[in-house]
Amino acid sequence: MKRKNRLSKAAYVEGILAGDRLVLSRAITLVESTNQADLALADEVLSDVLPHTGKAMRVGITGVPGVGKSTFIEAFGSHLTSNGQQLAVLTIDPSSQKTKGSILGDKTRMEELARDPNAFIRPSASGSTLGGVSNKTREVMLLCEAAGFDVILIETVGVGQSETLVHGMVDFFLLLMLAGAGDELQGIKKGIMEMAHAVVINKADGDNLKPAKRAKVEYQNALHLFPADPSGWVPQVKICSARDKTGIAEVWEMMQKHSEQVTTNGFLQSNRQAQQLSWFKENVQELLGSKFYRSEQVKAELEILTQKVKAGEVPALKAAHQLVDVFFGG
Amino acid sequence: MKRKNRLSKAAYVEGILAGDRLVLSRAITLVESTNQADLALADEVLSDVLPHTGKAMRVGITGVPGVGKSTFIEAFGSHLTSNGQQLAVLTIDPSSQKTKGSILGDKTRMEELARDPNAFIRPSASGSTLGGVSNKTREVMLLCEAAGFDVILIETVGVGQSETLVHGMVDFFLLLMLAGAGDELQGIKKGIMEMAHAVVINKADGDNLKPAKRAKVEYQNALHLFPADPSGWVPQVKICSARDKTGIAEVWEMMQKHSEQVTTNGFLQSNRQAQQLSWFKENVQELLGSKFYRSEQVKAELEILTQKVKAGEVPALKAAHQLVDVFFGG
Repeated sequence: MKRKNRLSKAAYVEGILAGDRLVLSRAITLVESTNQADLALADEVLSDVLPHTGKAMRVGITGVPGVGKSTFIEAFGSHLTSNGQQLAVLTIDPSSQKTKGSILGDKTRMEELARDPNAFIRPSASGSTLGGVSNKTREVMLLCEAAGFDVILIETVGVGQSETLVHGMVDFFLLLMLAGAGDELQGIKKGIMEMAHAVVINKADGDNLKPAKRAKVEYQNALHLFPADPSGWVPQVKICSARDKTGIAEVWEMMQKHSEQVTTNGFLQSNRQAQQLSWFKENVQELLGSKFYRSEQVKAELEILTQKVKAGEVPALKAAHQLVDVFFGG
Repeated sequence: MKRKNRLSKAAYVEGILAGDRLVLSRAITLVESTNQADLALADEVLSDVLPHTGKAMRVGITGVPGVGKSTFIEAFGSHLTSNGQQLAVLTIDPSSQKTKGSILGDKTRMEELARDPNAFIRPSASGSTLGGVSNKTREVMLLCEAAGFDVILIETVGVGQSETLVHGMVDFFLLLMLAGAGDELQGIKKGIMEMAHAVVINKADGDNLKPAKRAKVEYQNALHLFPADPSGWVPQVKICSARDKTGIAEVWEMMQKHSEQVTTNGFLQSNRQAQQLSWFKENVQELLGSKFYRSEQVKAELEILTQKVKAGEVPALKAAHQLVDVFFGG
């Protein structure tokens, strides 16, 4: 019954802990599989490597298309690897299913990093898995940590649900923006700006340098009006040019400062523990929900009730009771 | 089997539609009951009055303790009723269980409104109901609408989950603040400011007037940097003194302008429809979750797994699978 591509548990665990990229890649494929036997094995592999996780700096980065995320990650990543850091870049694009094509796509748009022996680029599968948890980025992150990466960079497009997801799994959340507030914000979901530990204004070069500096002051003033971060960290605003590779070192210094602060005051540990627990609860909700919504009776009734709720014929609460009763045969 | 205090369905419906306050109060008690027969009857009453809902302006108001919410609601409410509006004030305090005491409490802290024949004050029960939906504010709001109130004001304390809940059921969400940003923001949860359709700076009187005016400019600048509201509404900043009753009329004018705008561009209707549908989905999740977490086996296993996840002994995903399997006997 063993699939050709499946290794033994020990082979996965040993390979990952030895930092073998090929084994790591195959372990990620296993974690992202929709095959039940694959997932059972993945669960065991994850359990075994779990004690070896937690040592990396976990960074989330978001921003709407056109803000220069790929170029920024290239410049930032190269800065890190040239300073001796091992970097894993995980990308989440909820709009695209994972294909070999998108892997190649990521490697093409980050050409320099793709060739860098100290960097590892991997798009993260997202979307519906039948009856499972739809996003495995957190598990992939843990595998990368066990494989010895110092920094895990999780990239997401600033337009959807995935920002909250990523914010819930990283230590530092960075929002990449452009000068000239307004237009480019149309695409960003409300609430994302308040989650950011830093706003970095990209393309601060040429004629854009002056507006970028002005935007920096504006955002700095605005962020001071936001509720304080529970960690005691005050959100920072930086400017950079990923193209000209200016301001990149400052961003990295800021992250190190943050890391030092939250490590010292104990927030890092308590936050990660809280993140783990809420991930547990969210997974329970998702598994429960997917069992529920996969039921044929629920599907049929849901369609009818949705129309009735939309038309204002049935109160939402009553409709919910009816749907749940269908599932439990009440 | 009929309880002494329960009326017939027809009596509830007729009484509500006739605007009978006493019947309305008893219907609210029915909706908030934990008794199964009460809830079944409440479902029917709600279904019958549903076609008569939707005509009120639904306003949410939040702010940390000390910001002067009660005084503001008194001043604002009296302004409305003296302009011929019928006003219902629903208060949510997640920290307190509903008791006769807290009803009296609300009436004491809003003495003027409590005596006003055109106002109706009611604290909303929240907290756990065994196996049900824990917050019924939305259903209470619908009852009040059917009873003919023109404006429903839902008050909540700006420190917890209830803001997101309330934001999901109103047309206009108002954040009450004080001048001197920083300190009073400590209590506000991140993301709340970005949800607000207006920030109103209270206590803009005496020596506080100047700082309030300055704060107004700062917040106005900051809010312009936020992502745009899907309705096309640009969040406003106003100053007022609830004590001196200044600036109150301006707040009401702003809300009317908003109402006009979202009615004209169709956002009001589409937003309310979306709110109804997501309330339906949330109720399903809550009912499903409460069935799940009430199971004795789940309770026992949850305690063990929580410890293991916290200690980093079991991955969150694996723990979730185990817990769900316990429920379905897998």
